[in-house]
Amino acid sequence: MPDSLDDFQKSRAELNDEILNCGHLGIKRFFALDHQAYEPAALDTRTKELLGLVASAVLRCDDCITYHLVRCGEVGWRRAEVIDALNVALVVGGSITIPHVRRAFAGMREIQGLQPEVE
Amino acid sequence: MPDSLDDFQKSRAELNDEILNCGHLGIKRFFALDHQAYEPAALDTRTKELLGLVASAVLRCDDCITYHLVRCGEVGWRRAEVIDALNVALVVGGSITIPHVRRAFAGMREIQGLQPEVE
Amino acid sequence: MPDSLDDFQKSRAELNDEILNCGHLGIKRFFALDHQAYEPAALDTRTKELLGLVASAVLRCDDCITYHLVRCGEVGWRRAEVIDALNVALVVGGSITIPHVRRAFAGMREIQGLQPEVE
Amino acid sequence: MPDSLDDFQKSRAELNDEILNCGHLGIKRFFALDHQAYEPAALDTRTKELLGLVASAVLRCDDCITYHLVRCGEVGWRRAEVIDALNVALVVGGSITIPHVRRAFAGMREIQGLQPEVE
Amino acid sequence: MPDSLDDFQKSRAELNDEILNCGHLGIKRFFALDHQAYEPAALDTRTKELLGLVASAVLRCDDCITYHLVRCGEVGWRRAEVIDALNVALVVGGSITIPHVRRAFAGMREIQGLQPEVE
Amino acid sequence: MPDSLDDFQKSRAELNDEILNCGHLGIKRFFALDHQAYEPAALDTRTKELLGLVASAVLRCDDCITYHLVRCGEVGWRRAEVIDALNVALVVGGSITIPHVRRAFAGMREIQGLQPEVE
Repeated sequence: MPDSLDDFQKSRAELNDEILNCGHLGIKRFFALDHQAYEPAALDTRTKELLGLVASAVLRCDDCITYHLVRCGEVGWRRAEVIDALNVALVVGGSITIPHVRRAFAGMREIQGLQPEVE
Repeated sequence: MPDSLDDFQKSRAELNDEILNCGHLGIKRFFALDHQAYEPAALDTRTKELLGLVASAVLRCDDCITYHLVRCGEVGWRRAEVIDALNVALVVGGSITIPHVRRAFAGMREIQGLQPEVE
Repeated sequence: MPDSLDDFQKSRAELNDEILNCGHLGIKRFFALDHQAYEPAALDTRTKELLGLVASAVLRCDDCITYHLVRCGEVGWRRAEVIDALNVALVVGGSITIPHVRRAFAGMREIQGLQPEVE
Repeated sequence: MPDSLDDFQKSRAELNDEILNCGHLGIKRFFALDHQAYEPAALDTRTKELLGLVASAVLRCDDCITYHLVRCGEVGWRRAEVIDALNVALVVGGSITIPHVRRAFAGMREIQGLQPEVE
Repeated sequence: MPDSLDDFQKSRAELNDEILNCGHLGIKRFFALDHQAYEPAALDTRTKELLGLVASAVLRCDDCITYHLVRCGEVGWRRAEVIDALNVALVVGGSITIPHVRRAFAGMREIQGLQPEVE
Repeated sequence: MPDSLDDFQKSRAELNDEILNCGHLGIKRFFALDHQAYEPAALDTRTKELLGLVASAVLRCDDCITYHLVRCGEVGWRRAEVIDALNVALVVGGSITIPHVRRAFAGMREIQGLQPEVE
């Protein structure tokens, strides 16, 4: 795994720890609710992770996109499917999302299951 | 079908016609591209309509939400699944999306396949 | 109390009821968390309602602005203080927030404690 | 001039008056600064009104779009030019701006200089 | 004071200088108006800085968050109070604000008065 | 040409290539449509690039701002005109755009035609 994604994951985990241990119950509950939103209910986790990815892309949050790309790879979405989802985000969100789509493609180079095929 | 959704559909169709016939090729192509984004490719239309719904909800566009709710009903998503998708939008987008979720629930009352069950 | 604010409150309460009874636990928990965020903790409710108002104004959500204006009136903020908070929102959010500030002023005409003084 | 644009103008003027006379100096100065931003400087008013229109469109503010459409008509932009500017907004802002573009077309029906040609 | 916050402050001051001396009167006035919005009026500076922080957080502007965190420390808000304000922003703005809340916590490590207590 | 703008251009070109060759026709068409939106039609390219700049500024996308600044320099806008356009963006978008205006000024130092005059 290349360094940059690794660094993101480490910094993210460390700061999440600091936040969860800061003593604010409301924030702790929000983080739990956020986690639960992607657990299987009427929809399965796989579908919800793709929803999370597209929501993150149209709201133009690079860290959120990276997080959901990793999750999409983990739950078995293939590269072509993720790209098709990013196209929906691109059309809904417009050219202002292009820099984020670029960074999503850069991110996918490091993500298990979403890497471009090497000939 | 109640009046308000009907009115929305009629006004939407009429103005889309005016736009498509205004003589601007770029706008015409954008509308075509928008339509094509939801056609089956790596992902099927069903999944993409749910992506469109969640993208519309986090971007807080009532007309877009209504449009995708109707489409979600047409392609066979059930009420509980749509509500589970709206929950993802609510958690990602925060309490600022609540008024739009309220209007989504109001809209579902009129949408084939998404209506609350009557006892 | 004039009709329009009354209608908003009634429609809001009715749809909140429908949402809370739709059977989705995550949404129910989100509504609870949203409610708790304004309860006294390190900050008092009074301060938090003003934070909610400004957050709603810069995110340009009319229903959210109306809700927090009513709450600000209830917890004892005076008209001049609310206007001073709206000025912060205006400067942070720019002229694009002006239509929402206009509707906030229209709303205050109906809100107990925030009405303009009559000479 | 049809009623709806007329009503918008009247309500806008009345509430602007209330805001400017509410006694908050900062808000008064912001309104002045907003007005001055479109006065001739390095760029002429004509160019700036088109900038204001596109900024309003990508930020999806219907009242702001209507205001700048009226101003664009007043300063001599022709319908085809305004539509070409709206296309830039559509591509930058994505399909989420479509409902606002629809309302812009509806608005132009009532705006001097921007009306569709009648055969 | 650690390097990163120091670097931000230095770069911010240097570019603000360049902007204020670029010869555009409108921009100069806007910067003055922005400054004045946080001076005591109907509300005191302390309250307004917290409003500025929450507005910055829901609009997801890291530089703005850092600036207002520093100011909140200067005007005497305590860490627990700032965290309680960030919780309002988190609930209003949703999980898309989480990366910004993480960076706010990272920033507070360097900010006088907002640092976590060391046991 | 200094390094940072050069690096941006190189990384942008490389990732655009990867995206255009990823095999998704919709994305390819969107990129073409985005390009065409700035070609002469009812409005000339010069005007449209300024529209693109202001749209990018109010939507707070640094990469988009940098791209359109470079283009504005290429099509002959002078520094004072670009600054006057940024002022419109600042007033429309509010103080939340200030960090992006700062980075626009930093970027202009490296952009042919938009550099500050040296005495």
